[in-house]
Amino acid sequence: MRIDGRHYRSIWLAEDGWSVEIIDQTKLPHVVEIARLKTLADATHAIRAMLVRGAPLIGATAAYGLALALRERADDATMAEARAALMATRPTAVNLRWALERMARALAPLSESERPHTAHRLADEIADEDVATNRQIGVHGLKLIRKIAADKAARGGEGPVRILTHCNAGWLACVDWGTATAPIYMAHDAGLAVHVWVSETRPRNQGAAITAFELGQHGVPHTLVVDNAAGHLMQQGLVDMVLVGSDRTTAAGDVCNKIGTYLKALAARDNGVPFYVALPSSTIDQEIEAGRDVPIEERDGDEVLCVTGRGSDGALGRVAIAPRGTKARNPAFDVTPARLVSGLITERGVIGANAREIGGVADASGKPDARRGAARAKSCAK
Amino acid sequence: MRIDGRHYRSIWLAEDGWSVEIIDQTKLPHVVEIARLKTLADATHAIRAMLVRGAPLIGATAAYGLALALRERADDATMAEARAALMATRPTAVNLRWALERMARALAPLSESERPHTAHRLADEIADEDVATNRQIGVHGLKLIRKIAADKAARGGEGPVRILTHCNAGWLACVDWGTATAPIYMAHDAGLAVHVWVSETRPRNQGAAITAFELGQHGVPHTLVVDNAAGHLMQQGLVDMVLVGSDRTTAAGDVCNKIGTYLKALAARDNGVPFYVALPSSTIDQEIEAGRDVPIEERDGDEVLCVTGRGSDGALGRVAIAPRGTKARNPAFDVTPARLVSGLITERGVIGANAREIGGVADASGKPDARRGAARAKSCAK
Repeated sequence: MRIDGRHYRSIWLAEDGWSVEIIDQTKLPHVVEIARLKTLADATHAIRAMLVRGAPLIGATAAYGLALALRERADDATMAEARAALMATRPTAVNLRWALERMARALAPLSESERPHTAHRLADEIADEDVATNRQIGVHGLKLIRKIAADKAARGGEGPVRILTHCNAGWLACVDWGTATAPIYMAHDAGLAVHVWVSETRPRNQGAAITAFELGQHGVPHTLVVDNAAGHLMQQGLVDMVLVGSDRTTAAGDVCNKIGTYLKALAARDNGVPFYVALPSSTIDQEIEAGRDVPIEERDGDEVLCVTGRGSDGALGRVAIAPRGTKARNPAFDVTPARLVSGLITERGVIGANAREIGGVADASGKPDARRGAARAKSCAK
Repeated sequence: MRIDGRHYRSIWLAEDGWSVEIIDQTKLPHVVEIARLKTLADATHAIRAMLVRGAPLIGATAAYGLALALRERADDATMAEARAALMATRPTAVNLRWALERMARALAPLSESERPHTAHRLADEIADEDVATNRQIGVHGLKLIRKIAADKAARGGEGPVRILTHCNAGWLACVDWGTATAPIYMAHDAGLAVHVWVSETRPRNQGAAITAFELGQHGVPHTLVVDNAAGHLMQQGLVDMVLVGSDRTTAAGDVCNKIGTYLKALAARDNGVPFYVALPSSTIDQEIEAGRDVPIEERDGDEVLCVTGRGSDGALGRVAIAPRGTKARNPAFDVTPARLVSGLITERGVIGANAREIGGVADASGKPDARRGAARAKSCAK
């Protein structure tokens, strides 16, 4: 999508045709700084230090990282070492494992001279596929937004379709489009009036920092609110739909996503607001039936105790909000039961959050990995 | 309650017997600094600049402020000017108006020589009454916590009663005890094991800053979580009750309180967790039937866009979390429908959130103001 009027992906080949460029997301939204990855070490650093975040983007960065390693030496030992180094950056990010396994399977049979070029091509493919998947999510989601707009108009409602989102399931977590944001960008680009309520998403504030940045740069009208405000906005009739991403969706349709998603789903149900989840079918986990069996990552309490932002001098700063010595708990995700979900927007179409329809979409997936490892992806992994 | 092992109220007469001391709450939880109020100007500054906050404490400070003014000159003109100056500090804080009107009614008939001493005595009375009211809320709420502890034990549950609270309906918003915190302090002091989940309460973080400070200083075990985590904690069976304050409760039992309270009530209902509201009966507004008619204060968006805390140098700092130019909406309160409320803990006992039981408690109130002006109090006004 656009930054300063220019189209970007979150990762792209540099002008030299082999090194890779990314946006240093640790500095967003305060500074837009492009970083160049020329070596395996550059790539592992970018993932580990979260210059890139979001499962699809981590996967693509790892793929390019392997290609960069093979450009220097392409023997089996180098390939194994590079895979291990990349895997160690964020051990729980399963898109990373999936991307590296796919690369390795394709590269192993090739000669050393063929590998560097092919590795780059495969990394391009992985990035392009992510873009295509999210574009299709956008196409299907756009139809839904059009329907909500038409229903609203039929009821005599005026103004834009007001969409509340949470966290950042946006293009900066992917390669382009994003999952939850793809329908929004398509609606905006198609001239359909939308307004986005951006939920700040404590503790890491991905809504305030990344989603507000994305939408602002692309010109999509939006307003930031604290997570606490979602229920009140719905009570006041100010929300036409909720649209969020998902890190993992179970076979029964329970949705694991950024902490706080469940509260929004409860408020949506209590106020008759449709609650939709946008997700690549690869993040459906057919091996887990019920949401209560999804393991929830518990992160460092410091994320709760401290807030990072732009200080009055313009530089990044950090403040502690609680008394010294305060203990904090920091569950990073929660599970929204299928009963609260109006529908799942996948690249294969919009389906109900139930075993039958989910089974149909997941079975249609050609990739065996899609139903296993890749399902552990955390699209909101930062 | 206690700070550094010593008992404090949030406002008290200084050793000289006429000037007043407060804790400068703008610096909490990072620095505990006592401020001395010697003049009317000191009192108006303390209220306007939020050295004191919370409706009951604002009312008590205004009462002492009038007494300080009369100590210098006690004629009618001085009294009128002092009232006007105090009223102008926080025009929407209706406890302030209530306290000043009560003082003025009692002082007007008196001679100038009688007024200073009587004004001080009346201010003491107002403060003492607040303490007595909250103590009674604590007595009734403690019975409830004991019952929840007994029920939990009967089900084979172990460990402390785990109470989730929101914002700061604590002793620092009042003169002592607090409303939602009074039952918690009494339980702790009585040796009943409690553990408090402190919800940080964006945007102003009163949970993280003030409630965590209060509980920590008094020795009550507690853990800070982001507002987003409340639903997940309840899904995991980690919450035995929710206990919050209220700024205004309608005749039908709808509860207006700090933004985000409604989301916690929804999660409590969805998970079978009892949801109780602690409130002085003076904050019941018999003139408003339904929650949708309660006007909701909309505060400056800067509170959402910026976070204040302790910088790495130990000094207070402020960081911006969103891109420059981001718009924010900041509704300060929301309304929890009576159907989600398990009960109201008042100084007259625990009652159901329904018109009949509320009418009984409100009618028992001797003060006509209790059902009008005072009902506009914002116990979480900062």
